[in-house]
Amino acid sequence: MPEFDDAFRATLLQLFQWRRDVRHFRTDALPPGLVRQLLDVAALAPSVGLSQPWRFVTVDDPARRAAIRQNFSACNAEALARQDRAALYARLKLAGLDDAPCHLAVFADPDPQQGGGLGRDTMPETTAYSAVLAIHTLWLAARAQGLGLGWVSILDPAVVVAALDVPAGWMFIGYLCLGYPTAAADRPELERLGWETPQPATLLQR
Amino acid sequence: MPEFDDAFRATLLQLFQWRRDVRHFRTDALPPGLVRQLLDVAALAPSVGLSQPWRFVTVDDPARRAAIRQNFSACNAEALARQDRAALYARLKLAGLDDAPCHLAVFADPDPQQGGGLGRDTMPETTAYSAVLAIHTLWLAARAQGLGLGWVSILDPAVVVAALDVPAGWMFIGYLCLGYPTAAADRPELERLGWETPQPATLLQR
Repeated sequence: MPEFDDAFRATLLQLFQWRRDVRHFRTDALPPGLVRQLLDVAALAPSVGLSQPWRFVTVDDPARRAAIRQNFSACNAEALARQDRAALYARLKLAGLDDAPCHLAVFADPDPQQGGGLGRDTMPETTAYSAVLAIHTLWLAARAQGLGLGWVSILDPAVVVAALDVPAGWMFIGYLCLGYPTAAADRPELERLGWETPQPATLLQR
Repeated sequence: MPEFDDAFRATLLQLFQWRRDVRHFRTDALPPGLVRQLLDVAALAPSVGLSQPWRFVTVDDPARRAAIRQNFSACNAEALARQDRAALYARLKLAGLDDAPCHLAVFADPDPQQGGGLGRDTMPETTAYSAVLAIHTLWLAARAQGLGLGWVSILDPAVVVAALDVPAGWMFIGYLCLGYPTAAADRPELERLGWETPQPATLLQR
C-alpha cells in the first residue's frame, strides 16, 4: 500500500481549496488524449455495486452547443426573474459555455446491467450519485493538471437529452465546461462576489 | 496558486486507486478531533450555488446503531432473495457496521436557505449531489490519513430518518462506516471476489 505522507496531505488540501467551479476559460484546445486520460481516472470513482453507471458525451457539434447555450440562457433568465437579489444575480457569470474548449455532458444509466443491481434496491438514486462521484474524480484530476472545470446545472434536463440525442433512458447529471482557467482562486467566485459565505459543516450527535 | 507537479499527480492517482469501499475494520477508536477535521475538509466540496446543503450526523447511541444494523440486515435479506447469483451474493460482506468505530450518516437539506436557490431551479437534485460531493471529499481525505470508509446504501431511507430523529425534511444520502481498515487493496472487493469487472468509461461524441 502506498504511503500518504504529510506533504501529500498538505497538497491534497490545497487541491480541494483551489479546485473551484470555473466559469472563465481561455479558448485554447486541450492537449490530444487528455480527455481520455481524465475519463480513465474518473472510472476509478466509487460506484454502487461496481456498476460504473456514468456515461460521458463530448459535445463538439456547433448546432448542439448552440442548443445547450440557448437553453442555459432561457433557464438563467427564468431564474433571474425569480431571484430576490436580481441585480447581484445578473452580475454573476454562471457558465463558461462560450469560451471553454471542451464540453462534456454526463449522464447516468439508471438501471445498468453491470453490478447486478447490488446496493441499489432501496436507493435507486445511487446510480446518479455514482455519476456525481465520477465527475468529482475527474474534476480533481483535471485541476491537478492545471485545468479548470465548471459544472453547469442551469439547464432543462429534457432539453439536454434531446439536444444531444443520447440513448433512451439515460439520466442527465451535469454539463461540464473544461479548459484552462484565465485566473486561479482559493475562494469560490460566489463568495468573492458577495453572493454567499461558506460555512463549516454542521454535525449532529445521535 | 500552488504548483501541482508530476509527483503529486502520481500519488493522487494512487489515492484514487487505493481509495476503496471498506467493509473490514479494526475496532480501535479514531483519534480525537479527526472527524471534525475531516468535516472541515468535506466543507470544501463543490455545492450548488455555494449552498453547502450537506448535513452530518454521528451515530453513537447503541440503540440507534442497532436499529441501523437491523434495517441493513432486513434490506440485505430482501436483496439476496431477489438476486440471480444468490450464492455468490451471500458470501459478500457489504457493510462494516459491526466493527467500524465511527458511524456517520449523511443527509441533504433539499431546500437550503444558504445559496439563495442559485443553480437548482431546473435541477433540484443538485442539493443531493452536493452532499455526495462532500462525502467523496471526506472519503479521499480519510484515505490519505490511512482511514477506510464504507458507504452503506442497503438501507431504507425512511427507517434511517426515523431511527436518527433528524430535522424534518432532511433527505438521507448515505450511511458511512469509518475506521482503520484491516487490509488495503488497489482493486475493489467486488472485483476480487468475482462479482463484477471494472470497465473503462464510455465516451459518446456529439
